Amino acid sequence: MRQSKLFTKTRKEAPKDEVSKNAELLIRAGFIHKEMAGVYSFLPLGLRVIEKLKSVIREEMNSSNGQEILMSTLQRKELWEVTNRWGDETVDVWFKSALNSGGEVGFGWSHEEPITYMMKDHIASFRDLPIFVYQFQNKLRNELRAKSGVMRGREFIMKDMYSFSRDQKEHDEYYNGMIEAYNKVFSRIGLGEDTFLTFAPGGAFTEFSHEFQTVIDNGEDTIYINKEKNIAINDEVLNEDTLSNFNVTRDDLREVKTTEVGNIFNFGTQKCKELNLFYNDKEGNKVPVWLGSYGIGVTRLMGVIAEKLSDEKGIVWPSSVAPFDIHLVEISNGDEEVKKSADELYSTLSKNGVEVLYDDRSTSVGQKFADSDLIGIPIRVVVSKKTLAEGKFERVERKSGATDMVDESTLLSQT
Amino acid sequence: MRQSKLFTKTRKEAPKDEVSKNAELLIRAGFIHKEMAGVYSFLPLGLRVIEKLKSVIREEMNSSNGQEILMSTLQRKELWEVTNRWGDETVDVWFKSALNSGGEVGFGWSHEEPITYMMKDHIASFRDLPIFVYQFQNKLRNELRAKSGVMRGREFIMKDMYSFSRDQKEHDEYYNGMIEAYNKVFSRIGLGEDTFLTFAPGGAFTEFSHEFQTVIDNGEDTIYINKEKNIAINDEVLNEDTLSNFNVTRDDLREVKTTEVGNIFNFGTQKCKELNLFYNDKEGNKVPVWLGSYGIGVTRLMGVIAEKLSDEKGIVWPSSVAPFDIHLVEISNGDEEVKKSADELYSTLSKNGVEVLYDDRSTSVGQKFADSDLIGIPIRVVVSKKTLAEGKFERVERKSGATDMVDESTLLSQT
Repeated sequence: MRQSKLFTKTRKEAPKDEVSKNAELLIRAGFIHKEMAGVYSFLPLGLRVIEKLKSVIREEMNSSNGQEILMSTLQRKELWEVTNRWGDETVDVWFKSALNSGGEVGFGWSHEEPITYMMKDHIASFRDLPIFVYQFQNKLRNELRAKSGVMRGREFIMKDMYSFSRDQKEHDEYYNGMIEAYNKVFSRIGLGEDTFLTFAPGGAFTEFSHEFQTVIDNGEDTIYINKEKNIAINDEVLNEDTLSNFNVTRDDLREVKTTEVGNIFNFGTQKCKELNLFYNDKEGNKVPVWLGSYGIGVTRLMGVIAEKLSDEKGIVWPSSVAPFDIHLVEISNGDEEVKKSADELYSTLSKNGVEVLYDDRSTSVGQKFADSDLIGIPIRVVVSKKTLAEGKFERVERKSGATDMVDESTLLSQT
Repeated sequence: MRQSKLFTKTRKEAPKDEVSKNAELLIRAGFIHKEMAGVYSFLPLGLRVIEKLKSVIREEMNSSNGQEILMSTLQRKELWEVTNRWGDETVDVWFKSALNSGGEVGFGWSHEEPITYMMKDHIASFRDLPIFVYQFQNKLRNELRAKSGVMRGREFIMKDMYSFSRDQKEHDEYYNGMIEAYNKVFSRIGLGEDTFLTFAPGGAFTEFSHEFQTVIDNGEDTIYINKEKNIAINDEVLNEDTLSNFNVTRDDLREVKTTEVGNIFNFGTQKCKELNLFYNDKEGNKVPVWLGSYGIGVTRLMGVIAEKLSDEKGIVWPSSVAPFDIHLVEISNGDEEVKKSADELYSTLSKNGVEVLYDDRSTSVGQKFADSDLIGIPIRVVVSKKTLAEGKFERVERKSGATDMVDESTLLSQT
């Protein structure tokens, strides 16, 4: 894309009321727009990052036999009353509205209830199981406080997956496979090193649930980790029992600030019993289905990456989720030959499937480089009188600043 | 995809409370699930159709220099008060909710206000214009009645585009180009023949706005058309003035039932004046921006196609938006060789980018063909003992029922 056509402008300052580092960077670089506290719109660069994140997650969910669907935002009061999750005293993040035709609707903050209820149309026999479905859906949560930018939105995109299994064995197998799938996701998007499978409070059916927590300054959560032993414990379950369970003492653990980027939860058969989702087993017995739910905060990941992987100059996107592969910057200062060379390179790379943001603006060199650092595309390629003289292009790695001279064929493999 | 793995089941009857033909067909074939009146979730087959529709529309919007973004659902009361569109007396489809942190929020039924307001961050000079942005967004409308299935949802996916132009000339040029783009979209998805650019009531700045109306039995709208003269007039503007404008009499027009699949609207400079979106022209004068908005109901299109292009056996998708290119049906009756041949064809086609739904279920032939007709993939390919003996495959066109015997290479070009 030609940057002269991109409608967003970078800016020196974020809005005064923006207190989070991730939103400040993303706003300044033109990835998001703040609508109100905890509510952001996604501009062309930001939407590209979201689609890249979705694409990585989708691949791993499809590899885990997930089938993609899209549930509704509007939620039926009567359904959530069945499981006692309609009242504000049990769920305090509902948005609710009157219906013009009478009654009240809620706005989806999670989807276990409607998805379990829907499965009654598709599950009757043991032959219909297991079923794994997922969606990328816009969740709405009436958070009292929303000061962490896109890391805790009142509106945010979540990948939520649900597994429906015949029994505990089948459930556990999938659950453990999902831990692996999540590890792959976090590793592929550059957060693997600092993301920990963390033991958190369980429910009626399990001692623990599992969170995936990423270490980050100013994180809203606190966990205790031992990197050597690969142990991470949520502060809510840090007690003598848990410590002896893991055969560690408090001194073995280090306290770190984190944010929760994913969670997986075992509902056992409770939810399906409540909503009457049973199947007939081989012997003809009516048996309740096992439910697991598996979330990843997609827009939150965007915030975590922007905040955690940034430096003083701006964002540093990992190539797997960067809005473009290459930021091509022409420094022609009106020199037609330089301009022509940059135009040709842009055209060749684009035709060959390399995604290029091409800074063809008639702006100062300083402004172009500052914008390029702020936007944070992993590779910058400079075309100037100097590079033209050498018959090569200057390539700069955003992360390290490492520079070398390369030819077109090297750039063609830069995806 | 192997149909034995697809979790959705076809059904003989839609839910008793479903009164619309499109939703009845889509539910029975497993494309959608009804959450409540006017609210549907999209199952794997349905989501594939939606993504195909989005993909056709996206191509045309990108060809028209549109930049894709994604605005928020949550809407700030204060912003809509500025343009006098917050009150229920001016807009009667708002969903509204209390904010836990105090105050009230709305849920987006349209996005002119926030998008115009956002542009204040990106438009200052004539050099920043024109700008064309679009999104695929989940609109929420508190409709009093919702009896037309996915053709009038309380929740639905819309493509909304907005043009910001320097002056009327620039605005008109884009507006007219968008008419062409919309015609291309409707033609590509199989509705071109019966979709009419229709004159509808205008606003402060224009005598008429333009709707795109598709002729369909039981449509909610009524328009008057003259196909030879290519004239279509909304009943709200059918009066003596309009008739003489178009140089026709009432007798020249035929009354037809339709549904509105798209609309384009000229806001002139009114909205930008209200929200204070001005730019500095070449002479340094402060000038208001021209706004146009351009909508297409994506989920509505799915309903229109399902309803209009169906026959007594089920849906008949045009290939451009079908969930799969080919419905491969094996009739092995336990014959291993037939099964193997079908498996191999499935594998070869899939590897070569042909999208195949493979009915590998051990179900009766009658059930398989009935399901295949109901689901409506344009091409059915049958592998049986008979076809194996001939060394070819049987190909059946869903629309005409035309049958021929073809080899693998013919099927490989079936995209």
